[in-house]
Amino acid sequence: MDIRTTAGARAVFATARVARLATVDADARPHLVPIVFALGTGAHGDTIYSAVDAKPKRTNALRRLANVRANPQVSLLADYYVDADWDALWWVRADGIGRVLEPGEDEARQAVQLLVNRYPQHRLQPPAGPVLAVDVHRWSGWSAEL
Amino acid sequence: MDIRTTAGARAVFATARVARLATVDADARPHLVPIVFALGTGAHGDTIYSAVDAKPKRTNALRRLANVRANPQVSLLADYYVDADWDALWWVRADGIGRVLEPGEDEARQAVQLLVNRYPQHRLQPPAGPVLAVDVHRWSGWSAEL
Repeated sequence: MDIRTTAGARAVFATARVARLATVDADARPHLVPIVFALGTGAHGDTIYSAVDAKPKRTNALRRLANVRANPQVSLLADYYVDADWDALWWVRADGIGRVLEPGEDEARQAVQLLVNRYPQHRLQPPAGPVLAVDVHRWSGWSAEL
Repeated sequence: MDIRTTAGARAVFATARVARLATVDADARPHLVPIVFALGTGAHGDTIYSAVDAKPKRTNALRRLANVRANPQVSLLADYYVDADWDALWWVRADGIGRVLEPGEDEARQAVQLLVNRYPQHRLQPPAGPVLAVDVHRWSGWSAEL
């Protein structure tokens, strides 16, 4: 499948274990954090879910949520880099609109279930905080070998 | 060295081989791409350089430069992820102000030299396009084990 197509980029993104989330604050300043995520499909089409855990990165967690509330435009990137073979490099990107889900909501509970299924590490302590949902409006991708 | 300090985050970032660059367009939409980079120190303090190569990702290259010209606020992230040990995860971030250097400029030539020194892959075909310089105003970092 061609990673440069919508379907190809989506398929590759779905298998990535980590992505980087870019949000933008009210002063148009970008903010970046790595996230683990799960891809779901529902009423909003493709939606990428990530949980805000209650651990030390609290300040950063709050910042990304405040940013999404002020400006819901977000971008997520997954990529592959290796020094030894630049012809093997690729990246995939999801651009979309973010929504903050409170822990009690149905969609938040479903998202946490997707995350727990995908990351056994989450099972001991399922995320209990808000969930960031990003409705994907555009999938894109690039590969060095194409 | 504590990764949460300015010096610690800077030291870890300097050893990373790949980073992700977030820029913001005139409509406050974030844009994300992975980059290889070199860290230099000069008249502007710490500056992160990345080159725009003349290869297939031309459209993305142009977008990041147009974004920086419209809004120079950028963020760069390097991180470590491994499924097997979430206690080993870390990330470092550089927030700063971008400048676009044209190929002929002294600083662009010095940047290309830094990049070629750091990435032997660049030696066969040194980057010939514009260079993005990001003057770092803030280093920050996080580690799961702290």
